[in-house]
Amino acid sequence: MDIFYTLDLLGTLAFAISGALVAIAKRLDPFGVFIVAFTTAVGGGTLRDVLIGRTPVVWMTDLNYIYVIGLAVVLAIVFRKNWKKLSKSLFLFDTIGLGVFTIIGTKIGIIANLHPIICIALGTISASFGGVIRDILCNEIPVIFRKEIYATACIIGASAFILLSEIPLNKDLNSMITVGLVILIRLIAVKYKLSLPTFYHNNS
Amino acid sequence: MDIFYTLDLLGTLAFAISGALVAIAKRLDPFGVFIVAFTTAVGGGTLRDVLIGRTPVVWMTDLNYIYVIGLAVVLAIVFRKNWKKLSKSLFLFDTIGLGVFTIIGTKIGIIANLHPIICIALGTISASFGGVIRDILCNEIPVIFRKEIYATACIIGASAFILLSEIPLNKDLNSMITVGLVILIRLIAVKYKLSLPTFYHNNS
Amino acid sequence: MDIFYTLDLLGTLAFAISGALVAIAKRLDPFGVFIVAFTTAVGGGTLRDVLIGRTPVVWMTDLNYIYVIGLAVVLAIVFRKNWKKLSKSLFLFDTIGLGVFTIIGTKIGIIANLHPIICIALGTISASFGGVIRDILCNEIPVIFRKEIYATACIIGASAFILLSEIPLNKDLNSMITVGLVILIRLIAVKYKLSLPTFYHNNS
Repeated sequence: MDIFYTLDLLGTLAFAISGALVAIAKRLDPFGVFIVAFTTAVGGGTLRDVLIGRTPVVWMTDLNYIYVIGLAVVLAIVFRKNWKKLSKSLFLFDTIGLGVFTIIGTKIGIIANLHPIICIALGTISASFGGVIRDILCNEIPVIFRKEIYATACIIGASAFILLSEIPLNKDLNSMITVGLVILIRLIAVKYKLSLPTFYHNNS
Repeated sequence: MDIFYTLDLLGTLAFAISGALVAIAKRLDPFGVFIVAFTTAVGGGTLRDVLIGRTPVVWMTDLNYIYVIGLAVVLAIVFRKNWKKLSKSLFLFDTIGLGVFTIIGTKIGIIANLHPIICIALGTISASFGGVIRDILCNEIPVIFRKEIYATACIIGASAFILLSEIPLNKDLNSMITVGLVILIRLIAVKYKLSLPTFYHNNS
Repeated sequence: MDIFYTLDLLGTLAFAISGALVAIAKRLDPFGVFIVAFTTAVGGGTLRDVLIGRTPVVWMTDLNYIYVIGLAVVLAIVFRKNWKKLSKSLFLFDTIGLGVFTIIGTKIGIIANLHPIICIALGTISASFGGVIRDILCNEIPVIFRKEIYATACIIGASAFILLSEIPLNKDLNSMITVGLVILIRLIAVKYKLSLPTFYHNNS
């Protein structure tokens, strides 16, 4: 499906730019910026592929991901002083990526004949673990473990995709609806600053 | 072997609870708590499976691990103020897990026809690298690299299992003896606060 | 090719010693020192093998790597007060390792029939990601993301190997020339303190 693949690459671009901007702020050199952009963009899909034994991993067989990430690094560096103005567009692409990556990962689990719960896990890993690896590389506790509805949107979207697969619904339509659902949940969460509660208490 | 599998799940529960408690203390949200609990419990076995190409990894084909970890997260959150009182039971289960995971990992290496040294390494990885990944996610230098006899107990237990495989001893009996050996070494190490020496000196 | 394999093990020794020295300085215990030495030496090759599905990974089928790393840990601990004097030899071996690992990784990509860009990536991963994993384990932002020409030397050497494969040149000669090229670039970079520029600016 052509639109879907286009959205996938657009999401990759947005993830890579956001990774590159974090790396630039951490004063990494261009190689470091590229690696952080790369892992942010395809780290989740790579982990997914490694866990299910789908090797060589995705970016080794479709070079478009690498080209898009290279472009993202150039854009991030060249326009590094201008991203504040573009942050709304970037956030939108990033959110599209979140939705698209979730459904791609979920579908790959279904094709590999894995249990629905595992498919949901794979969708969530695909969409959100690139950011986890980025934060580990940058020596931070992963931000999605601490605040904001992020992985939650993936889990709900992937679950909806699995449920809607049970009814006689066109597969592409199902993809579009559930990608939209992930995007919607994420947009609402950010707009209303929703986050999950934490349970810390002084144990001493 | 039924008892062995039960002990495996009990160990998974204990590892997951201890991971969840660390995550709660780090003020992670429920998703973060689940992921840290998950990686603590099955991260070692997952790394083992990925390294030898045994994919999809273990928790994708036996969902009991995920259910047990889900239960552990609920228990950890609900009773988060009471774990101090239960810390002895938790430590016991955790130590049982250490022993059981070691021997499971060692056996998987033997089945994959790998060299005894690699089998010992796989047993040790299975039992102790979940904690390593937990510490990396929580932005700490892994505790088992710094103090306490922990991996050492795994290495000795796995070596004993390999040696006892050479004599005509019932396999289940061998498992039970060497699981017990790991537990014993660990209990003695904790009771007498034994740890490996370090070699730091001011090099300047 | 015998010399090549000898250089491979010499590079492994040097990488492992440098990893062990970092771990000793971080006050890790002998188990921690071994694991950090191990991941520094074979972490890059392990990641490469996992990404392309070449499992069991390299050090599981050729135990010489483990023996050499064990030797390196013993040497690092015994002579821990003397490495300052030996730092030139250590740096030379380390640089040889960088060159050899790059070309080994690149060749493995070619054998796996992957795109030249992926082969260059695999060569770079083989040679430089052990150090990345070492830094993550030791809770640092990877040094090769921040300073010094390091991965850059790998990328240039791997690219040269691919280019020279296109002309009728003896394969071993090609290996030797391009290993030498990586070593040369690295030596020049260190001698003249060359590093890539960074792009940080205050974005507020």
